[in-house]
Amino acid sequence: MPGMIQSIERSSAVLRLLAAGPGRLRVKEVADALGLPKSTAHSILRTLEHVGFAEQDPRTARYRLGRALLDLGNGGLDVNELRSRALDWADTLATRSVEAVRIGVLEGTGVRVVHHVFRPDGTTQAMDTGLIIPAHATSLGKTLLAYDATAADTVIRAGLAAYTRRTVTDRRELAAALAETRRQGWADAVDEWQPGRAGVAAPIRSFGGLVVGAIGVYGPADRVCDGRLRPRAALVEQVCAAANAISRDLTEPRS
Amino acid sequence: MPGMIQSIERSSAVLRLLAAGPGRLRVKEVADALGLPKSTAHSILRTLEHVGFAEQDPRTARYRLGRALLDLGNGGLDVNELRSRALDWADTLATRSVEAVRIGVLEGTGVRVVHHVFRPDGTTQAMDTGLIIPAHATSLGKTLLAYDATAADTVIRAGLAAYTRRTVTDRRELAAALAETRRQGWADAVDEWQPGRAGVAAPIRSFGGLVVGAIGVYGPADRVCDGRLRPRAALVEQVCAAANAISRDLTEPRS
Repeated sequence: MPGMIQSIERSSAVLRLLAAGPGRLRVKEVADALGLPKSTAHSILRTLEHVGFAEQDPRTARYRLGRALLDLGNGGLDVNELRSRALDWADTLATRSVEAVRIGVLEGTGVRVVHHVFRPDGTTQAMDTGLIIPAHATSLGKTLLAYDATAADTVIRAGLAAYTRRTVTDRRELAAALAETRRQGWADAVDEWQPGRAGVAAPIRSFGGLVVGAIGVYGPADRVCDGRLRPRAALVEQVCAAANAISRDLTEPRS
Repeated sequence: MPGMIQSIERSSAVLRLLAAGPGRLRVKEVADALGLPKSTAHSILRTLEHVGFAEQDPRTARYRLGRALLDLGNGGLDVNELRSRALDWADTLATRSVEAVRIGVLEGTGVRVVHHVFRPDGTTQAMDTGLIIPAHATSLGKTLLAYDATAADTVIRAGLAAYTRRTVTDRRELAAALAETRRQGWADAVDEWQPGRAGVAAPIRSFGGLVVGAIGVYGPADRVCDGRLRPRAALVEQVCAAANAISRDLTEPRS
């Protein structure tokens, strides 16, 4: 069909084929069924396996539908997978930035902190892991909302509570901040939730660019920001580098 | 990722995105979420809609997951859809070939006849619609088995019953016949089920080449075949043309 993306049509046919029978299929059987060269069928199956929509039995080399496809209705993000891929990079970011690092995912109208690395300066700090923090008033939240229009709608409908005098409570102002986040690839929140505190965060992306979490640093505004209350460029770069490294890790083939 | 098909990765991300929230998404929201140009997101969404994996609300233009994706576990073929798309072409084939026409889909180890057009010669004929006929001994069945390795396995394991002295009962001989069917794009069965009767059939393909049914003619061997008991070339051509026309109809965008 003109205007249609052939490899998506083909991959949908492969998925229907894997779904149709109780049996598991060899590459050649998929190729034969769809009238494709074996190498083309193999590329499609490998990609589908890579994104979790197909699984290969390592013993028989046969393919079947993947867990991720069957779980689509349930959301699909595995937070444990995200955490385990992110642990080392979060530690590295904390060491390099000498700030506390948090990783968050959207939950309801807030952000659940799924991982927290203390600022490596020996001070006593409270563990944030498990906390739900406000989405519209934090850099983690703004990052996540920037790439999730449904969640942004829900948060706006729920009402934008003011935590400080700098919290963004106007929906148009928030929309502009989210557009800016998408444009620059990171978000900041300075003095918007807890007075005198600032954060910078960037998106963690899975296959195809899907944002599955955010990672950021959080600390005293006078350390996180420069004199004009803008986050320091070096810190932004460190956060983005960590986010990109985790994204790469998430989308690399499993060994 | 090197070696991975980017549009399949992206379409998997779009599906996860549509699956993630209760809301329905605009093209721009999908593009923003994945960091894609709007035109790319639109092509992916249109293709996913085309194959039934996404649906667009005609009123709001927003997208959500499609029925076909949610039904993947249940097999997915809608026989009514197949029949309604095939009716006119089956009539045309019967008129042109002056033979009875049948459309079949695999069911268990047999072929269910889902549509039957009588030979247009005014004679009294029995309606086959709803019958299950043997897969390995009919042209409809051989066509369907050629593109379904799981079904072919099941049929072979169940044992290849002999209906006539020409029925293929040897598994290697059947495998060769199925390979030949794939090579030439159609199957015949002469005198293999009912003595003195012959059939020619070709596959009906849906999106991405997935075979969802077969259409064929069936009649006295001396009319279907030439002197060397090979189906007449003109008849083969008519059957393949009908199968291709239905396949085109099945994969055209719905108006």
